[in-house]
Amino acid sequence: MSELRWDPLKQHWVIIATDRGRRPRDFLVEPEPTEMTSCPFCYGNEDKTPREIYAARPAGPPNSPGWKVRVIPNKYPALRIEGELNSRGYGLYDVMNGIGAHEIIIETPDHNRGLAELTPAEITEVLKAWRARFLDLRNDTRFRYMVLFKNHGLRAGATLSHSHSQLIAVPLIPPVAATELRICREHFESKERCIFCDLIDFELQSGERVVREFANHVVMTPYASCFPFELRLYPKRHGHDFALLSDGELGELAVAMKDMLGRLKGVLKDPPYNFILHTAPPRQPRLGKPDYWSSLEYDYHWHIELVPRLTQIAGFEWGTGFHINPTSPEDAAAFLREAEF
Amino acid sequence: MSELRWDPLKQHWVIIATDRGRRPRDFLVEPEPTEMTSCPFCYGNEDKTPREIYAARPAGPPNSPGWKVRVIPNKYPALRIEGELNSRGYGLYDVMNGIGAHEIIIETPDHNRGLAELTPAEITEVLKAWRARFLDLRNDTRFRYMVLFKNHGLRAGATLSHSHSQLIAVPLIPPVAATELRICREHFESKERCIFCDLIDFELQSGERVVREFANHVVMTPYASCFPFELRLYPKRHGHDFALLSDGELGELAVAMKDMLGRLKGVLKDPPYNFILHTAPPRQPRLGKPDYWSSLEYDYHWHIELVPRLTQIAGFEWGTGFHINPTSPEDAAAFLREAEF
Repeated sequence: MSELRWDPLKQHWVIIATDRGRRPRDFLVEPEPTEMTSCPFCYGNEDKTPREIYAARPAGPPNSPGWKVRVIPNKYPALRIEGELNSRGYGLYDVMNGIGAHEIIIETPDHNRGLAELTPAEITEVLKAWRARFLDLRNDTRFRYMVLFKNHGLRAGATLSHSHSQLIAVPLIPPVAATELRICREHFESKERCIFCDLIDFELQSGERVVREFANHVVMTPYASCFPFELRLYPKRHGHDFALLSDGELGELAVAMKDMLGRLKGVLKDPPYNFILHTAPPRQPRLGKPDYWSSLEYDYHWHIELVPRLTQIAGFEWGTGFHINPTSPEDAAAFLREAEF
Repeated sequence: MSELRWDPLKQHWVIIATDRGRRPRDFLVEPEPTEMTSCPFCYGNEDKTPREIYAARPAGPPNSPGWKVRVIPNKYPALRIEGELNSRGYGLYDVMNGIGAHEIIIETPDHNRGLAELTPAEITEVLKAWRARFLDLRNDTRFRYMVLFKNHGLRAGATLSHSHSQLIAVPLIPPVAATELRICREHFESKERCIFCDLIDFELQSGERVVREFANHVVMTPYASCFPFELRLYPKRHGHDFALLSDGELGELAVAMKDMLGRLKGVLKDPPYNFILHTAPPRQPRLGKPDYWSSLEYDYHWHIELVPRLTQIAGFEWGTGFHINPTSPEDAAAFLREAEF
């Protein structure tokens, strides 16, 4: 069982997940991309993975070929679904059991196509899988937040090259989300407006950092980008919850995502990247307290944040929380606007 | 001129340092270690660097061979020493000029010896250089904090292999330091004790995470380590300010540092790492306000934090602020205790 440990000085939680069993020798050799002769995410190898939780499957029984998108539990999960949290103190520290869910969304049966190469219709099927898993995991009241993310490329942490995204449900609101939610709440309480809506308005007027504007979405580089070619994809219409999007809205989002990923690939030649879906946490009426997040429909605004992994995070960044970015977001936006792809 | 930009949603500052001039093609190829035939940090190449600010130099005129430790301004600084901050608003954002200092401490004239291979007497000379630069930079009242750090190895961000550390003076208290200072202040105000002293007492009693105890220092793995084999070096005697240490205290610290680096090298075969010196910010009587940090001698406790760069920071970590650590700090401490080096 992994543990969540609290650092009272850094004010953060860490997941100590030793089930993956690392010893010093595991770190001696630079890891190589796992290119098995037999990829567990390809057709015909469904029995090499845990049993599927969800599939977009026009034909065939579960755990057989014929699917378009397939969701499975992670074989080596950072958090486990069984058990209770058992939150407790330990000296100055806090600790709880590593309860959560860790799922893999296999985005295509085709081993050699990345998310950027899928058609908008195929990407829409991936987005429907995300939505279905969000809605299902919300039924488990132990989970306070769901993190949907994608690691693309070895340098971005992808140990299998077959295109996939991941969903981790955690028993508390993570620090990055907590800060964002608090800022949104404060802005709404003082101005009765969404801070993201204000920010999107400002950026559309300025235009300097806009990469591509669609009818209902905008792709842009953030003004205070931490990394070169960092990107945000915002829905222009206010909405706090990705999981409430309609099929039609997911279809439009798929077009914007394909455009964003295609431009990035064109300008930077298929760079490693991470993206993260930021959306509202589930409501928690079970706690018997007034639901703190009940007004999120007004003050939070879901979006996607993408970070290409072009530069190293070094001692200064780690020690300070400051980032040094050698590429101005305005230059990055200009390169991406002119991308051929 | 670089800029410091404020993100109102993430609540952090970013240094946009485009003087280093990165274009998309700069990111296309994996960077290689710069092994010049002529290293600018070696004897005889003193004219290939900016003029020295400090040197431990038994013989010879400035900017010539004969030194043991040499401090120079960074040729490609993230922040520049000349100018005014000019803090201003921009839409929802804030921005100020990238004013600061960025110095390189060349730790040895020997191209092929790392910090772990230097003698305690040689490491003491490095520590004296750090102390001298801290004390000097405090005379510049634009600087609110100094970050002393070392990147060892290409994967840790070291672009030159010749052993060196870096000192960056910044015009505001960085987020990581601000959180730590705030927690220390709160603990002291409620308990009239230093939280680090409490933590060190607890760890010495437990012993599980102690790697090596010296008369006046302790090396240990943190309970909530974010990364495998993360380390802390604490002075056992309370002290808020590294720059106030005596020559004798620096000599003892050098012995503890050499031991820590030697064990790490022994167990993990010279891994890439970053370490950061955490110390109190300079006092700021100039602001004409009561000096907020005037009681730091009671509530802050300087120390060194070391992070081996063995695992990738992937989408989950970036998106949440949570870290998943596959090695328990207790296991890491056991391996390091038994290290042969």
